[in-house]
Amino acid sequence: MFAVIMAGGSGKRFWPFSRSLLPKQFLKITGNDTMLEQTLTRLDGLISPEDRVLVINEEHYSILENDERLRPSLILTEPLGKNTAPCIGLAAIHLYLRSPCTPVAVLPADHYIPDTENFKKTLLCAMPLAKEGYIVTIGIIPTRPETGYGYIWRGEKIDKGPLYRVKRFVEKPDLNKAIQYLENGEYFWNGGIFIFTPAVILEEISIHLPDLYNKLENLKSAISTDKYRALLEELYKSIESVSIDYGIMEKTKRPVAVMPAQFIWSDVGSWESLFELNSPGADSHGNILEGKGLLLDTKKSYICNKTDKFSVVLGMENILVVNTDDVLLVTELSKSQRVQEIIEILKERDLKKYL
Amino acid sequence: MFAVIMAGGSGKRFWPFSRSLLPKQFLKITGNDTMLEQTLTRLDGLISPEDRVLVINEEHYSILENDERLRPSLILTEPLGKNTAPCIGLAAIHLYLRSPCTPVAVLPADHYIPDTENFKKTLLCAMPLAKEGYIVTIGIIPTRPETGYGYIWRGEKIDKGPLYRVKRFVEKPDLNKAIQYLENGEYFWNGGIFIFTPAVILEEISIHLPDLYNKLENLKSAISTDKYRALLEELYKSIESVSIDYGIMEKTKRPVAVMPAQFIWSDVGSWESLFELNSPGADSHGNILEGKGLLLDTKKSYICNKTDKFSVVLGMENILVVNTDDVLLVTELSKSQRVQEIIEILKERDLKKYL
Repeated sequence: MFAVIMAGGSGKRFWPFSRSLLPKQFLKITGNDTMLEQTLTRLDGLISPEDRVLVINEEHYSILENDERLRPSLILTEPLGKNTAPCIGLAAIHLYLRSPCTPVAVLPADHYIPDTENFKKTLLCAMPLAKEGYIVTIGIIPTRPETGYGYIWRGEKIDKGPLYRVKRFVEKPDLNKAIQYLENGEYFWNGGIFIFTPAVILEEISIHLPDLYNKLENLKSAISTDKYRALLEELYKSIESVSIDYGIMEKTKRPVAVMPAQFIWSDVGSWESLFELNSPGADSHGNILEGKGLLLDTKKSYICNKTDKFSVVLGMENILVVNTDDVLLVTELSKSQRVQEIIEILKERDLKKYL
Repeated sequence: MFAVIMAGGSGKRFWPFSRSLLPKQFLKITGNDTMLEQTLTRLDGLISPEDRVLVINEEHYSILENDERLRPSLILTEPLGKNTAPCIGLAAIHLYLRSPCTPVAVLPADHYIPDTENFKKTLLCAMPLAKEGYIVTIGIIPTRPETGYGYIWRGEKIDKGPLYRVKRFVEKPDLNKAIQYLENGEYFWNGGIFIFTPAVILEEISIHLPDLYNKLENLKSAISTDKYRALLEELYKSIESVSIDYGIMEKTKRPVAVMPAQFIWSDVGSWESLFELNSPGADSHGNILEGKGLLLDTKKSYICNKTDKFSVVLGMENILVVNTDDVLLVTELSKSQRVQEIIEILKERDLKKYL
């Protein structure tokens, strides 16, 4: 089994702690290791480092180049982020040359999955179907009517193991639909974890994203030659940005299976979700204070102090304070997804140094 | 006419911008000059620098020692802050030796009085009565039922000028009483501005604060000798902390007059009051942003950024953010008086470096 770890994210959700040059997957926000390191550790004993492919944005290469642990793995760089379909296609052409029919587990580098054993069992369970030509996806059992994720609607059960046929991949719903999905019980969150063979996914790309396919084929024949670099740049400059979900999964005629996740999962998609994740470590007022400071008459707040500064919060509730060397952010925890609006404004106003 | 400028305050209200080593009177919070500089400028044309006495805490001497403008004035240092009665007594013994019966205007160094002309007219108006032996005080016309000030209850009008006899000095009232005072119309705020002669105030001190008086008399005979320093230390170590209001004004049998202030006045006693003072300069959402930053979906907030940091506030209302080199404060503007609680806790926890 191969693993493709998608680590090309650009680091907007945890701004100003995550920055364009240091996105979330390279941050130690869910433990003593970075999220990427945790993702790799999770695979130990299942997929050896030699069989792992790490896809990153080339501007982050310097973060990893001296990481001894990654030496045995293949590191692929993307000149630009173009969402998940090109990223997966890029990894697939490399793995196709090694073994076209060996299952590949495609894994985001920045998800929180504390239960390693059940995670590995789930992947193992999915492997036989992937070998048969299925696209297998892991369905996260929903716990709230989340409107920020795509959903997977399951159909009939498949004989082999705890798997279901997928009726349909569904785009991010509005709240009413999300409530229906939650109540219905046949819907899973699409956590972006897939298992398929290189041959299968490249065939799907050839059908649904032919332009990408042709350029990948060109690139494949240039692997290990001095033309590779120029073709890679050309490919990323010219293709459209498209997710594997929208580009392939919602359209494929191939049999797709979903396997319900038997593990706790979070995509840690906002400061608020990180706060919830870390809340077992909160003080008796529900506050988390990282770094030096004093919280007075303050409840359920997250003070993320990444500087030597002494941070004092008085008489507040549900607030988020992020203090870095050059930027301070103060907002309500429930509004923490809106940091993306800040990023857009900083781009417009030519304040890129704060991105 | 002499002036005594009381500049011994210890800088708690504007923490963390004001610090024990840099209190409010040395900050440029109400304009391009420090509050002390504004207080001095206000006297220009009325009381010459030679006739001014500045009383400061000795730990702030280094802030002023190279200030050419202060050379002609007498600078007196207090080894410890013991409230206003010892401070005024100290100035009085020095001025007594120069001219016991010349009126002295006693002025806090950290009040905001933008209307210089009317301020000077008011002092001039008060002078003749002070020469006659009155204690004259300036009554600030109340605009809200403030519970943080003492009040002055006026009695019958005095013939000479727009002055009234004082019936009584009243300590800080509760809210009900403050509302009554406001409605009654015969009550002024006690703004801590007094005019009297050195002879009069020393006599009053001899009656109501005899211990202080005896020590001041001792000290007076040591002025310009090498015993002065030791006696000054001894005096401040041994005497109790007492305000001129409580120690003298509430008890005196001497005729006291109050002159209604014909000028705008603020003691700028909190971040909230400074915010209100500066609110004509607020943006269209009622925000004040000092320094670099971005306010998004934020209203009526005060971002006081005293560092080079970029401060972003998203989706907040009525908040105060103060960002200094080593401390960050986040609170609601309406809770800004409570910074004093923070200071107490920092003292307890031996975090004096942040005071």
